[in-house]
Amino acid sequence: MATKQNFPTVDQSHRKAYGPISVPERLLLGPGPSNAHPGVLDALACPPIGHLDPFYVELMGEVQELLRYAWQTNNRLTLPMSGTGSAAMEATIANSVEPGETVLVAIKGYFGHRLADMAGRYQANVQTIEKAWGEAFSLGELEAGLREYRPSILAMVHAETSTGVCQPMDGIGELCEKYNCLLLLDTVTSLGGVPLYLDSWKVDLAYSCSQKGLSCPPGLGPFTMSPRAESKLLKRSSKVPNWYLDVSLLNKYWGSDRVYHHTAPVNMNFGIREALRLLSEEGLENAWNRHRSNAEKLWKGLEQQGLDMHVSEELRLPTLTTVRIPEGVNGKAFALHLLNNHGIEVGGGLGSLAGKVWRIGLMGYNSTPENVDKVLNIFESELPRFRENDACAA
Amino acid sequence: MATKQNFPTVDQSHRKAYGPISVPERLLLGPGPSNAHPGVLDALACPPIGHLDPFYVELMGEVQELLRYAWQTNNRLTLPMSGTGSAAMEATIANSVEPGETVLVAIKGYFGHRLADMAGRYQANVQTIEKAWGEAFSLGELEAGLREYRPSILAMVHAETSTGVCQPMDGIGELCEKYNCLLLLDTVTSLGGVPLYLDSWKVDLAYSCSQKGLSCPPGLGPFTMSPRAESKLLKRSSKVPNWYLDVSLLNKYWGSDRVYHHTAPVNMNFGIREALRLLSEEGLENAWNRHRSNAEKLWKGLEQQGLDMHVSEELRLPTLTTVRIPEGVNGKAFALHLLNNHGIEVGGGLGSLAGKVWRIGLMGYNSTPENVDKVLNIFESELPRFRENDACAA
Repeated sequence: MATKQNFPTVDQSHRKAYGPISVPERLLLGPGPSNAHPGVLDALACPPIGHLDPFYVELMGEVQELLRYAWQTNNRLTLPMSGTGSAAMEATIANSVEPGETVLVAIKGYFGHRLADMAGRYQANVQTIEKAWGEAFSLGELEAGLREYRPSILAMVHAETSTGVCQPMDGIGELCEKYNCLLLLDTVTSLGGVPLYLDSWKVDLAYSCSQKGLSCPPGLGPFTMSPRAESKLLKRSSKVPNWYLDVSLLNKYWGSDRVYHHTAPVNMNFGIREALRLLSEEGLENAWNRHRSNAEKLWKGLEQQGLDMHVSEELRLPTLTTVRIPEGVNGKAFALHLLNNHGIEVGGGLGSLAGKVWRIGLMGYNSTPENVDKVLNIFESELPRFRENDACAA
Repeated sequence: MATKQNFPTVDQSHRKAYGPISVPERLLLGPGPSNAHPGVLDALACPPIGHLDPFYVELMGEVQELLRYAWQTNNRLTLPMSGTGSAAMEATIANSVEPGETVLVAIKGYFGHRLADMAGRYQANVQTIEKAWGEAFSLGELEAGLREYRPSILAMVHAETSTGVCQPMDGIGELCEKYNCLLLLDTVTSLGGVPLYLDSWKVDLAYSCSQKGLSCPPGLGPFTMSPRAESKLLKRSSKVPNWYLDVSLLNKYWGSDRVYHHTAPVNMNFGIREALRLLSEEGLENAWNRHRSNAEKLWKGLEQQGLDMHVSEELRLPTLTTVRIPEGVNGKAFALHLLNNHGIEVGGGLGSLAGKVWRIGLMGYNSTPENVDKVLNIFESELPRFRENDACAA
């Protein structure tokens, strides 16, 4: 055996003797993450292999192909970014915006504001049009914005996780064509649960996440880019100002060259491959119908308990429902009670809806009639105590 | 039940009927990823919980504390970035560089070049000093560079994954103090396997990865920032030009405010928490000694087979060894043979060492005498065929 080395003294102050991990059981019915499919968790725990291993390279192609199906796109550049949905969001901006270009963000919730913040960091001339949190844009409103600002990119959210609104997409792609701008779409809370037809809708850039409709833990951010956006990327006058998310580099790894870029999060990709495979096995139409019918059951049940939905029915997301917190109820205390005493997570409001709504997610693996019954039962049995006497929350 | 929706036709062309995942067994003795500890894979497969769940918030603090131990730092801002090591690398640059500032990169391998590329994307005035791939910098060489360029930041690699060189650190922090610049250090291939004393070394910014010395799959990028770097961040004249990696925002989530930034990759954090816990249980001195003694056993055994190490012994990394490919041997074919026929991955050379060296990693869970014996046996039995007749590789 080798001789022991002499080290300078090691500071033991941060060497804590924690026990092995033990995770509490949770039913995740908030805005995400949702519970993962058990098969996805099994896939995640497969021993890692190399990111240039022929088996892994084949798996990458499978993930890309199944993502194209889930998004209904033929885009060659379709891949999961090695970060969460927000990283994929930033990738759409970083790769498409050049300094000084006008980006019009149609804001109707928290994530629209995030898009505007990001676009500003990439030195876009950011212009915004806004709707109240809980509404969607009409074609006329969008066209007025396009006419006024003549942007290079219109960025908007399909499924606003902060409000529970699903933006109707008919005609928006055609408007963008007319005004010669790219269409950038957030599909974080729609992929896998809500009808999405990226190519028919003429979407140029889109992103999503792994932890909602796909029933996989958070950690990957599906990303896609149309040939039109790709050709804009090729014509850039400067490097993409973000190395990690630079699609011109990533393309050499995910494309046929297989040039090393970064060490891929292989296990997360095992997981998303299984998640996408399960979605493909179920079929998009079945998954979309399942989300719709469970959401309708939830809405009906909550309304029967006298609760109001924040969004009008025709705009409501089947994946995420915003429920108005009744007068006099401490919404945060109720949510904490459900989490701590019943292991059920529901979300609170963000931004202008903070304190005003709960957000109830029925996404992917969690969109089942049984989970709807659980929510309805727990609201029926527990909410009255919070209505009568807020103090019992403590 | 709800009525079925009528959807536009769903394109089935990308709906492939792949079977469930089945990952081949690999012994990963390349430059990373390494095999994960089985306990880490178990942790990874725990059902996800919410990123604002009180349990998760506690776990975040544990991960931070154990990272401080592993790095030997008291830095408050110590956390895993939600991406791979390259994301954490970019985070050190994005948060510390302001446009026009001089960044001096001391390049002695592939990852030094990457640092220079990244710094350029953040509009630094990038200056470089270079050494041959396989050598380290002397204090005199570094001081000459600091004197000439007067940078705001000196960026360099502690453990060069492309060459197998460990940069001696004595005196570098003092030099940076003398020339009033921050010290940014890549510890991707050293964390957990090679002595690291960030605070004693006066390192201001450092990053690493999860998949090498920590025995966790790839997907997280440990990051740390000294109070000096933190105060520079606070004085920035503009927003960090990278939203996802913006530490001023991340600090609000990882700090005591717990303000939502992005949906954390909770399962990856389960994994790294277990990985760091195991490292803390073993103790840094024991882990460092283990890596050293297994590496020495490897070097001795390979030399006994007539092979040459690329790096002189006093600069050699115990985690990653570069072995010169003997004259007449097709190194790539040999590595492919080991992978396809024996399930053992060793790496090839990068950049100026492509085709000239193999890279053999003994990192984290994989640094065992048994694995050294496996490498030595397989080299002894298989390499002679490749020495005699390159054609048998096909």
